Amino acid sequence: MSGGLDSTTVLYHAIKRGYKCECILFDYGQRHRKELNSAVRIAKKTGCKYRIVKIYLPWSESSLTDCDKKIPNNTKLLAFSSQLSAKATLPTTYVPGRNTIFISFALSYAETINAGTIFIGANAVDYSGYPDCRPEYYLAWDRLLRSLGVKISVQAPLIRLDKAEIVRLGSKLGVPFKLTWSCYKGGRTQCGICDSCRFREKGFKESGIRDK
Amino acid sequence: MSGGLDSTTVLYHAIKRGYKCECILFDYGQRHRKELNSAVRIAKKTGCKYRIVKIYLPWSESSLTDCDKKIPNNTKLLAFSSQLSAKATLPTTYVPGRNTIFISFALSYAETINAGTIFIGANAVDYSGYPDCRPEYYLAWDRLLRSLGVKISVQAPLIRLDKAEIVRLGSKLGVPFKLTWSCYKGGRTQCGICDSCRFREKGFKESGIRDK
Repeated sequence: MSGGLDSTTVLYHAIKRGYKCECILFDYGQRHRKELNSAVRIAKKTGCKYRIVKIYLPWSESSLTDCDKKIPNNTKLLAFSSQLSAKATLPTTYVPGRNTIFISFALSYAETINAGTIFIGANAVDYSGYPDCRPEYYLAWDRLLRSLGVKISVQAPLIRLDKAEIVRLGSKLGVPFKLTWSCYKGGRTQCGICDSCRFREKGFKESGIRDK
Repeated sequence: MSGGLDSTTVLYHAIKRGYKCECILFDYGQRHRKELNSAVRIAKKTGCKYRIVKIYLPWSESSLTDCDKKIPNNTKLLAFSSQLSAKATLPTTYVPGRNTIFISFALSYAETINAGTIFIGANAVDYSGYPDCRPEYYLAWDRLLRSLGVKISVQAPLIRLDKAEIVRLGSKLGVPFKLTWSCYKGGRTQCGICDSCRFREKGFKESGIRDK
């Protein structure tokens, strides 16, 4: 759980469906602590147990972890139907293997506490073209988990929703939007310019819901 | 690379086949530093670049990371053909999700340096029944990597060899056995009693090669 719009909506979705949730928050050397602080606040609000896992990727050259790099603000919105040839179109915010690492830690935790489901807020419509946000990737995870003989599935309930649909769903579920943090930068307020802010803005605009 | 018999043999196998290798060593809170020290010594001997990645699993209850737990020494050798129902037969040395986490970090690094192959010393014959050492698990990884659109494959060249065959292969490849460390415990010498020592002893005995 990142503390952004998507993972928060997924948490509320899972709670609504009766799951007893525990949140895993990843501290992977993000440029700022805003996301994590948001995630902690939201977890506390829902009364869910949470754990912060520290991950250090000594080789990451992503602009999400490297403060010397510029955060992009002009990445085209990509639909998952456009068969993108990975690397070519990837923005600098891409962290290689990130979701794979996240899910593998979640798997470890799920095995330990006997949880049956891993939820992730990945989303293949209004996103930046990350290959680990595509539906076929999550199908491949299910197969991998079956090969391990564990009864754990990975669910990405937002995978085929666009940002406006996510905002509408979140609104219906009572997601406290004002506690969420989407901005790639760590300013006092969200910048409104970076890719992540733009996707969020587009979502609220199209849904007709006001972003507080 | 753990610094044990299997991962060291895999490194020598890959070098022999002409791969330019880099080693990833994981510091995941093992009971002792002997393994890691061995791995560093072996990497240096081969002239391969190596990286140590620190991983902390706050929830791990494995006897490999928890010093209050007893290391088992009577786990039956299992063959991958015995369709084991995961949990039931798993010894306390099992670290949930371990190889999945290892491979996901390796994937991240491989993507970063444009490597095409991830080698792992997993082995499904003379082992402790860990589900992440079975052939179908590695096939599932290949599928997952394809779903990401990356040209990276996971190879587990020892997967169908027994320990004696691994010792023979290592011997042929010039593996410096005396630098490797197999023992689960961190004594001055290897204990000769724990599961890992017993599997190693069996391998050398059956291969007719002396373990220095």
